[in-house]
Amino acid sequence: MADTIFGKIIAGEIPCHRVFENEHVLAFLDVNPLAEGHTLVVPKKPYDRLEKIPANEAADMFRCLGAIAKRVLTVTGAHGYNILQNNGRVAGQEVNHVHFHIIPRHAGDGLGYRWKPQPGDAAALAALAKRLRDA
Amino acid sequence: MADTIFGKIIAGEIPCHRVFENEHVLAFLDVNPLAEGHTLVVPKKPYDRLEKIPANEAADMFRCLGAIAKRVLTVTGAHGYNILQNNGRVAGQEVNHVHFHIIPRHAGDGLGYRWKPQPGDAAALAALAKRLRDA
Repeated sequence: MADTIFGKIIAGEIPCHRVFENEHVLAFLDVNPLAEGHTLVVPKKPYDRLEKIPANEAADMFRCLGAIAKRVLTVTGAHGYNILQNNGRVAGQEVNHVHFHIIPRHAGDGLGYRWKPQPGDAAALAALAKRLRDA
Repeated sequence: MADTIFGKIIAGEIPCHRVFENEHVLAFLDVNPLAEGHTLVVPKKPYDRLEKIPANEAADMFRCLGAIAKRVLTVTGAHGYNILQNNGRVAGQEVNHVHFHIIPRHAGDGLGYRWKPQPGDAAALAALAKRLRDA
């Protein structure tokens, strides 16, 4: 489980550019940044997907996320940022250890998404919402 | 502050396809979904950016996020999902009320990102990490 590059960073076997650390969370700079200040925030335990993180550790991660993002904005002068976290190979996850990207954004940086939202069918959405509530 | 479409949904002035609700958090289906089960998770209070959410409410949101994602996977049969949250117009934020997207993913769905990570300069990364630690 710990045998990913992030597990090795947490174990101190590989160095990182550390930004923040507490009991459950480590944050460090992405060494292949999309923008200056691109930061990764990871749980110290090697959960591979978000839905597997116990509630208290997930809560601690989220507490940190906003605070770290605030520092990134202050230091880099970015006007905005994306929080992105991918679960599963099909979603673009490349390291099987949960990691949140904090991606600082600037006007005209060319980053963004390939997606085309389409209006959903109201009856289908209502039926799906019910299944999700009842799940 | 509450005068966004999400504020109106929370106030009950506009209907939504509700998926989950607790004291601090409401989750509902995106009416322009990128995939079946595309869900938005929002704080009930009208914070416009992630870094402004108080720690306890942020923690509660994160607790919910994984649990809701799990339901979405179960009900839709998706193999993975992206968590995406945009802060600031420059980052693609269209509604000024914090919202997390849960985007179910399937092989060959064509969703994804326009980005080209570039190796960073080690000395610059080390200097930046120090500024972020000290901020």
